Amino acid sequence: MFAIVRDNIAATPFHQWLMPVLLSVDEAAASVVIELPFRAELAGQPDRPEFHGGILSALVDIAGHAAIVAKLGRGVATLDLRVDYLRPASGTIRAAATVVKLGKSLGLVDVRVDNARQQTVAVGRAAYFTAA
Amino acid sequence: MFAIVRDNIAATPFHQWLMPVLLSVDEAAASVVIELPFRAELAGQPDRPEFHGGILSALVDIAGHAAIVAKLGRGVATLDLRVDYLRPASGTIRAAATVVKLGKSLGLVDVRVDNARQQTVAVGRAAYFTAA
Amino acid sequence: MFAIVRDNIAATPFHQWLMPVLLSVDEAAASVVIELPFRAELAGQPDRPEFHGGILSALVDIAGHAAIVAKLGRGVATLDLRVDYLRPASGTIRAAATVVKLGKSLGLVDVRVDNARQQTVAVGRAAYFTAA
Amino acid sequence: MFAIVRDNIAATPFHQWLMPVLLSVDEAAASVVIELPFRAELAGQPDRPEFHGGILSALVDIAGHAAIVAKLGRGVATLDLRVDYLRPASGTIRAAATVVKLGKSLGLVDVRVDNARQQTVAVGRAAYFTAA
Repeated sequence: MFAIVRDNIAATPFHQWLMPVLLSVDEAAASVVIELPFRAELAGQPDRPEFHGGILSALVDIAGHAAIVAKLGRGVATLDLRVDYLRPASGTIRAAATVVKLGKSLGLVDVRVDNARQQTVAVGRAAYFTAA
Repeated sequence: MFAIVRDNIAATPFHQWLMPVLLSVDEAAASVVIELPFRAELAGQPDRPEFHGGILSALVDIAGHAAIVAKLGRGVATLDLRVDYLRPASGTIRAAATVVKLGKSLGLVDVRVDNARQQTVAVGRAAYFTAA
Repeated sequence: MFAIVRDNIAATPFHQWLMPVLLSVDEAAASVVIELPFRAELAGQPDRPEFHGGILSALVDIAGHAAIVAKLGRGVATLDLRVDYLRPASGTIRAAATVVKLGKSLGLVDVRVDNARQQTVAVGRAAYFTAA
Repeated sequence: MFAIVRDNIAATPFHQWLMPVLLSVDEAAASVVIELPFRAELAGQPDRPEFHGGILSALVDIAGHAAIVAKLGRGVATLDLRVDYLRPASGTIRAAATVVKLGKSLGLVDVRVDNARQQTVAVGRAAYFTAA
């Protein structure tokens, strides 16, 4: 399943600019980990090497979607997304997404984004439409 | 105030790639309108000219933040963000953000994203930390 | 449709204690208004005549659900609910709920809760599962 | 700290009707567990012994608040609340709330509500205003 998720991420045009990296897919735990290194054009302010909040919300969606792809083997539509920002995010960050529920119509995924010091920088939750 | 909001948007590194355009600032209504034209690298799927959900969530954050900047004259930190996706978004979209509350510590902003046919493609709500 | 919504509200066991009152159903606007008078057992603190936050979140769900009932003529399941609290709520409050989207699987409703001075005390948004 | 949290819960007028029971306070883990037995007047439908969604959202707020009280030793105001409903909830349910972040201005709490079969019936997240 790793290859399917990796290819789904790679085939997405926006990702070819953002460049999120799939690190792992744990099918038993219904979870994936995606890494995103900081670079200057991802910054939210001109003078600080910190991710734009919109990049973090996009990463939550990307990781949540990948967790569903890892279960279903195909892409789905995002229904809604929520992100709480806990602290400024810099360096290389990792989003760990875990499927909370996978129903016939709806899937729900929890996402935690940590920095390289294992500090959580944001938490999110997203719902996906899973009907075929 | 239009110039201050426009310059705040323009100075943000991520925006120099995304290229959101500030159309209007209505100080009496505490609202702003930001436009984002579709282009291929913003797509969420390889075969459809539709915005990636993460781009829409970033746009909600950008528009919500701009509405707060239009009131305070300075940038703030995003605390949390929620987006509901209503339909696929393509073409040139517009995010209209209106301040719901502006307190000493917290500001809350409602955002509606419409396509060129005046169909709402997403709605969002974001909270910002407004203390100086 | 007013009678159907009113009867759906009245038939719900929890509502027989809470006693929300349906004031109006506007089918053209896909909106309903529900009123809830304060009483001591709805308070969130022993010394203040203000609604418990949980009562407000329940009211958001009740009003959002009623707006869907006004469109479909039947009850549905709530999928998710979000509430932002803007100020302490006291006296008689009114929740105005408007359907944002009504799809085959999902409905989304916006809710605004005002006090008798027309101050908004809370805003909410809820998603419902609309498939038959 | 158990007694302080228990007394804070008991002193709240709405709780004297709802009757949530504090089971445990784990100060090291910054978490609390609150139990709520089903009874007929908590139902969301006349013919099913299942909790009203508004009761579940209230329980998320109560448990989240209790987790903050367990850290600060005093009550705070709820800023926002989100609940995702995963399945119908019946019998005796337990809400486990864990503090995700406790800052000078804001606290964020994760809440999971399980039924007696250890099935998760709802997940929630709430933000509180923690400034003195």
